[in-house]
Amino acid sequence: MQSLLVLNGPNLNLLGQRQPEIYGRTTLSDIEKACRKRFEAQDVKLTFLQSNREGELVDAVQDAAGVHAGIVLNAGAYTHTSLALMDAIASVDVPVIELHLSNIHAREAFRRNSFVAKVAIGQISGFGSFGYELALDAMLRHLDT
Amino acid sequence: MQSLLVLNGPNLNLLGQRQPEIYGRTTLSDIEKACRKRFEAQDVKLTFLQSNREGELVDAVQDAAGVHAGIVLNAGAYTHTSLALMDAIASVDVPVIELHLSNIHAREAFRRNSFVAKVAIGQISGFGSFGYELALDAMLRHLDT
Amino acid sequence: MQSLLVLNGPNLNLLGQRQPEIYGRTTLSDIEKACRKRFEAQDVKLTFLQSNREGELVDAVQDAAGVHAGIVLNAGAYTHTSLALMDAIASVDVPVIELHLSNIHAREAFRRNSFVAKVAIGQISGFGSFGYELALDAMLRHLDT
Amino acid sequence: MQSLLVLNGPNLNLLGQRQPEIYGRTTLSDIEKACRKRFEAQDVKLTFLQSNREGELVDAVQDAAGVHAGIVLNAGAYTHTSLALMDAIASVDVPVIELHLSNIHAREAFRRNSFVAKVAIGQISGFGSFGYELALDAMLRHLDT
Amino acid sequence: MQSLLVLNGPNLNLLGQRQPEIYGRTTLSDIEKACRKRFEAQDVKLTFLQSNREGELVDAVQDAAGVHAGIVLNAGAYTHTSLALMDAIASVDVPVIELHLSNIHAREAFRRNSFVAKVAIGQISGFGSFGYELALDAMLRHLDT
Amino acid sequence: MQSLLVLNGPNLNLLGQRQPEIYGRTTLSDIEKACRKRFEAQDVKLTFLQSNREGELVDAVQDAAGVHAGIVLNAGAYTHTSLALMDAIASVDVPVIELHLSNIHAREAFRRNSFVAKVAIGQISGFGSFGYELALDAMLRHLDT
Amino acid sequence: MQSLLVLNGPNLNLLGQRQPEIYGRTTLSDIEKACRKRFEAQDVKLTFLQSNREGELVDAVQDAAGVHAGIVLNAGAYTHTSLALMDAIASVDVPVIELHLSNIHAREAFRRNSFVAKVAIGQISGFGSFGYELALDAMLRHLDT
Amino acid sequence: MQSLLVLNGPNLNLLGQRQPEIYGRTTLSDIEKACRKRFEAQDVKLTFLQSNREGELVDAVQDAAGVHAGIVLNAGAYTHTSLALMDAIASVDVPVIELHLSNIHAREAFRRNSFVAKVAIGQISGFGSFGYELALDAMLRHLDT
Amino acid sequence: MQSLLVLNGPNLNLLGQRQPEIYGRTTLSDIEKACRKRFEAQDVKLTFLQSNREGELVDAVQDAAGVHAGIVLNAGAYTHTSLALMDAIASVDVPVIELHLSNIHAREAFRRNSFVAKVAIGQISGFGSFGYELALDAMLRHLDT
Amino acid sequence: MQSLLVLNGPNLNLLGQRQPEIYGRTTLSDIEKACRKRFEAQDVKLTFLQSNREGELVDAVQDAAGVHAGIVLNAGAYTHTSLALMDAIASVDVPVIELHLSNIHAREAFRRNSFVAKVAIGQISGFGSFGYELALDAMLRHLDT
Amino acid sequence: MQSLLVLNGPNLNLLGQRQPEIYGRTTLSDIEKACRKRFEAQDVKLTFLQSNREGELVDAVQDAAGVHAGIVLNAGAYTHTSLALMDAIASVDVPVIELHLSNIHAREAFRRNSFVAKVAIGQISGFGSFGYELALDAMLRHLDT
Amino acid sequence: MQSLLVLNGPNLNLLGQRQPEIYGRTTLSDIEKACRKRFEAQDVKLTFLQSNREGELVDAVQDAAGVHAGIVLNAGAYTHTSLALMDAIASVDVPVIELHLSNIHAREAFRRNSFVAKVAIGQISGFGSFGYELALDAMLRHLDT
Repeated sequence: MQSLLVLNGPNLNLLGQRQPEIYGRTTLSDIEKACRKRFEAQDVKLTFLQSNREGELVDAVQDAAGVHAGIVLNAGAYTHTSLALMDAIASVDVPVIELHLSNIHAREAFRRNSFVAKVAIGQISGFGSFGYELALDAMLRHLDT
Repeated sequence: MQSLLVLNGPNLNLLGQRQPEIYGRTTLSDIEKACRKRFEAQDVKLTFLQSNREGELVDAVQDAAGVHAGIVLNAGAYTHTSLALMDAIASVDVPVIELHLSNIHAREAFRRNSFVAKVAIGQISGFGSFGYELALDAMLRHLDT
Repeated sequence: MQSLLVLNGPNLNLLGQRQPEIYGRTTLSDIEKACRKRFEAQDVKLTFLQSNREGELVDAVQDAAGVHAGIVLNAGAYTHTSLALMDAIASVDVPVIELHLSNIHAREAFRRNSFVAKVAIGQISGFGSFGYELALDAMLRHLDT
Repeated sequence: MQSLLVLNGPNLNLLGQRQPEIYGRTTLSDIEKACRKRFEAQDVKLTFLQSNREGELVDAVQDAAGVHAGIVLNAGAYTHTSLALMDAIASVDVPVIELHLSNIHAREAFRRNSFVAKVAIGQISGFGSFGYELALDAMLRHLDT
Repeated sequence: MQSLLVLNGPNLNLLGQRQPEIYGRTTLSDIEKACRKRFEAQDVKLTFLQSNREGELVDAVQDAAGVHAGIVLNAGAYTHTSLALMDAIASVDVPVIELHLSNIHAREAFRRNSFVAKVAIGQISGFGSFGYELALDAMLRHLDT
Repeated sequence: MQSLLVLNGPNLNLLGQRQPEIYGRTTLSDIEKACRKRFEAQDVKLTFLQSNREGELVDAVQDAAGVHAGIVLNAGAYTHTSLALMDAIASVDVPVIELHLSNIHAREAFRRNSFVAKVAIGQISGFGSFGYELALDAMLRHLDT
Repeated sequence: MQSLLVLNGPNLNLLGQRQPEIYGRTTLSDIEKACRKRFEAQDVKLTFLQSNREGELVDAVQDAAGVHAGIVLNAGAYTHTSLALMDAIASVDVPVIELHLSNIHAREAFRRNSFVAKVAIGQISGFGSFGYELALDAMLRHLDT
Repeated sequence: MQSLLVLNGPNLNLLGQRQPEIYGRTTLSDIEKACRKRFEAQDVKLTFLQSNREGELVDAVQDAAGVHAGIVLNAGAYTHTSLALMDAIASVDVPVIELHLSNIHAREAFRRNSFVAKVAIGQISGFGSFGYELALDAMLRHLDT
Repeated sequence: MQSLLVLNGPNLNLLGQRQPEIYGRTTLSDIEKACRKRFEAQDVKLTFLQSNREGELVDAVQDAAGVHAGIVLNAGAYTHTSLALMDAIASVDVPVIELHLSNIHAREAFRRNSFVAKVAIGQISGFGSFGYELALDAMLRHLDT
Repeated sequence: MQSLLVLNGPNLNLLGQRQPEIYGRTTLSDIEKACRKRFEAQDVKLTFLQSNREGELVDAVQDAAGVHAGIVLNAGAYTHTSLALMDAIASVDVPVIELHLSNIHAREAFRRNSFVAKVAIGQISGFGSFGYELALDAMLRHLDT
Repeated sequence: MQSLLVLNGPNLNLLGQRQPEIYGRTTLSDIEKACRKRFEAQDVKLTFLQSNREGELVDAVQDAAGVHAGIVLNAGAYTHTSLALMDAIASVDVPVIELHLSNIHAREAFRRNSFVAKVAIGQISGFGSFGYELALDAMLRHLDT
Repeated sequence: MQSLLVLNGPNLNLLGQRQPEIYGRTTLSDIEKACRKRFEAQDVKLTFLQSNREGELVDAVQDAAGVHAGIVLNAGAYTHTSLALMDAIASVDVPVIELHLSNIHAREAFRRNSFVAKVAIGQISGFGSFGYELALDAMLRHLDT
């Protein structure tokens, strides 16, 4: 049985309320339920974490080593500014898949740079809450090969 | 009776001691007293918060929803670097006025960009501790109309 | 009794008609009336000037020396392009407060640079016509200290 | 029964031979087989096209209107240079999902800009040949909602 | 007896495990031991702190005032992004020496800018764990003169 | 009978003498005659103005409101530098067509940016004095539809 | 009897259907009819070509030498990216007028550079389908002088 | 007897009062006297003009044609922003020498670009009021050869 | 007997007629003759291809694998814009030498970047038609070692 | 009797032969004679030096301390690239006037930056060989005051 | 009998020892021998010079005038930084061919700019020691025509 | 007994006199004495060299091969401009430590780039003359491991 971490950054606790025209009306808890339903059936253990604090996200990435087989990371705004998070990912031996609800490449220029991308396996961007399932799917396939 | 939040970012706890040639000799607590004196007379309830941590400021903005009618935000150095704070403001339905003690437009280039500005009603910059009163005044006028 | 100059740059004569979704429906004359009402009660003499011409604004700043105790300057589009106006302010011994009706920091990139800011005490931006009252208030406080 | 187009740009005909350390050893025909197997079981009709020519890709996007319900587009190098392809996508009423085998965000600077991204629903990047399945999955989900 | 603070930023708790080809195999605790051994013999009291959180580092710099005679600061990734840390250093009257294990000037472009440098006495970069001893040595010499 | 304004900026009074290898040998008065001949036959009233002063051009644009049905504007050098002129055009409800005698896109880099273009219907550039007729023609067609 | 080529680039075959809010509802065939009607009366022979392929446009420009007296070129997206087209125009002795339906100077930054402009007589931009008539008019006048 | 124009731009009327640490204590009238004394002895007729308005300086350059043999131009702040002035100089057949009191190359970045320089014979910068004599000297030598 | 491909990009079919002051009066066919004469004597088989179309050049590079021992590539304008061509060269195991008739490093800025250069052995630029012989010579030497 | 050094950089030994359309036909020795004639009459001792080597120019500036009252420096191409020369000037207590034969501000972009300017009193540019006399004149006046 | 200069810049004396993975194992003296062998047979006199000093290279270029018919110049690192060398080449009437052992266009960004290129006939880059023969060949052909 | 070279670049011969507010009052000879005293006691042989000439520094680096075990290099202004020096260091097998008296990262922008850094072990910056001891210390430690 594989354990995966789904790590969420700043303001994702507001999902469902926050700018629904961009981020949709599904809450983080709805997403968690949908993912658990689909992936626990496949014998995957999921842990969901959310924090608004850069340092806690760094801690969570570090703590994943030896505990989780992979991390799906929606780093929110820290995607674009956090070298510390990038360094944390590079420092541990756990594969990371980068996830964004909105298509960050079609938005403001300052959302187009991703420090996470430099150390992640791949990126999924623009598919709303369904992106979590795609990312977990991609991680399982990655761990298979 | 209206409730307003006055939210202060990193190093503002040192006000009065810190580089007084730039920031003056008034402490944050002096400012709080002056504001309370003037605005509580107008039946406005003021809450002052200060934190050196980006994540706590994000939390404070999120928590203001449904509690405070407006936020006066002196985000200090996070003004220029925090996309997370910008996203938090955009995520809640509380108007924000941006405040700076010094005139950031007359200082180093890296202090000229403000992420807060993109989601704030307006900005007041360069009037020292009196800026807090101006900002609260502006917020009350904004809430009136 | 203190004398203050309120100096307005290009297209501000159209206030009230011009792009009301950005600049509001109050005319410059309405603003003048509101300011006179509030500040003449405080024994402040106000002079309002408006010009579409860079050179006339330079002249007005120069002529303020020895006549006015301070200038509230809404330089409009010249804010972003006029080195001549910046040099005029630096050349006279009269404090200047920079004013903008809209929040210039949340608009097009070419409105984000301000040459006036480099030589002004501070900046007030985004509060519509009420900004004039805030700026005069700030100027009086500045002259007090 | 839904019809989807999987459109491939320059040098993707060489997949499996070309720089296998970056792009893997699976050929485009292997990918086609895997996708057909999985998605035809779900009553989806798949059409695979590949061309090295920008103009033919523009034609293919235009011709998809009224024929295919969605396009999965791996535009290869034209991703980064073709305004014509971007305009074609914007001109037709068919949703497009952008796909890349390698994680373009972790490669050379000139691969980081995507004109396709500005008009696509979302982007999947870095998961090798499995990305085609993820993209088709995402497209079906998109068409459902 | 002089008291010095050795302050370490994000991911430095992983030293010894993290990318040893760049950062070496010595742990932060090994470094602490080596420094204590050498400098306590010289009647210097050393305090080692490490945090992954920007705000805690800001706090630590602020708290050093009146407690420590100097700070050796390896701010890790926050070196390049934290204006808040820069402002904290400028706000207290404690000299700071900037330290990096790797030669940041020979690495990625985004590691070449240092906000800490603008307010530090000097910088030592590229000497691995021995850099701590060099930095403490430099600090003692600086405090002597 | 429709009234159109043909507004000319700095140095266009020298047309015919000024750098004839770039601007040709036709004078502004020759152009006026040719235009009057052709368009007055079509029951169009033409007003020609020229000024070397940015502020007078701003005034002329403002004054056109309610008087002229459209403006053909050859703003000369102010095309590239005048935010004030751009704001004036945006402030009035009169359509503007931008005109240049030489092909500004094939000249020095600093002539390639046009602030007028951001608020004009369209631009005609490079056809010498005949451009005035093309621009008036385009304006009439625009007013028709 | 003069022969002119009207050459159209990528996606212009979709005119009338494609983003009508930007490009209008007139089709390329409507435009051809309107032009033929007006200019064949003036004894001008018109040839209309359209291609989505950069290389075919390069061929068409080359083939125009000795056949057509002038080219009206709406190069669409290739305007901004095709050095090959620019070189082709420079290589033949046929005058070219550059045409755009929308005002490219008021759109996205990447549409503001034109390689065609560097080798064209002039540019007409923003007048929709009527621009074709203006351009043909301008070409005839150019050939007259 | 040769006639030369000495043309002065914005804020130079304040010379002697304005920022004397940069521009010195000599007034424009002192300079005029010193120049007349020295150059009228050499049978040179001098005309001094000053204006704060860009358009008036453009007029003055245009009007110099056929009247003055040369212009010494201290364009002040318009040096750096006025394409209109540059075009005026290029439009008349009168040689211009560019003059600055302070060494503009050792000041702020925005004072380093000069549009006047592109069309002037040469530049004299940094010699205070004595620069006027150097410039007139240089002009006479230029007219000699 | 070695087989080499000499591949020519857009507008090189016009050689001899096209801007002879830059590209000379020798035609591509003259060059082919001169090369055949010299290199067929050395038992080298030469194939000359020219196309104005990016996609055909990509095809030609791909098709060279297993057929030609090396490619001399004068990609013309596609040198500077074609990532697709660069990727094609990187995808096949055939050495490429980059050739330019004119010295591209002494021309316009947009001709100075070469995507071909990133994957070619070397570059020969500025020697007109003789460059073909130099490039073939260099290729033979390269294949020898 | 005052001693002045006239220091000349690379390629100035070729003056009179080198690109006479830019630099004129007067040789450095002609200039020396003209200067000696004019300034020795005023009791000024002149030393002329020329070197093509950056290091020798640095030496000459250093050696001037205590020997010469001022330096007229035509640093030629090192003007734009030599930080070492700039540092040498800042290191000695001898005033330097920067001289250029051609108007460097009207030439290529890479000639517009001057490191010498940052530490010189002023700059004279564009007056050919007569510039030496102007610069010596300016130096004498500077030493007077 | 023609005389040619082969001029070599900094660090080329280390050829054969220096970074052989980039520059190969052939020494400068090996190259000289190979060139002499081939070209002295063709009645060409070759002079080889090498210097690590920019000024000596400037001297050598100047001294070539009237002595050598052409220069093959491998300026090494000075290629990218020496305006003085560029000016020297422009100052003498001797054709120069630019040579690089490695393909500078495929290396670090700071090696991509060449000041030598702006004044050279052409450039040969990336063919190792054989490049010297290619360059001499190209020079002889150039001198022939 | 180990031999180390301490190599000093331009203007460092003036140490003690030159801008003492930046570089201190200690002379290079004082530094040499202090270093000899401390390190000769540790059986290290020190050689001090200083030159104002880029080429001599290149020579000195080359000559160090086989003679010195390491180089402490204070390249002064050549740090920021000399690719030749960088190449020399890369060409020899002698470790180099980069040294600066002042904190170059807190000074002008043009002092922040270091070409030496790209090929040095590490950098010590801002500790005045004591930096030499730190650098030698660091070199000895480096040679130990």
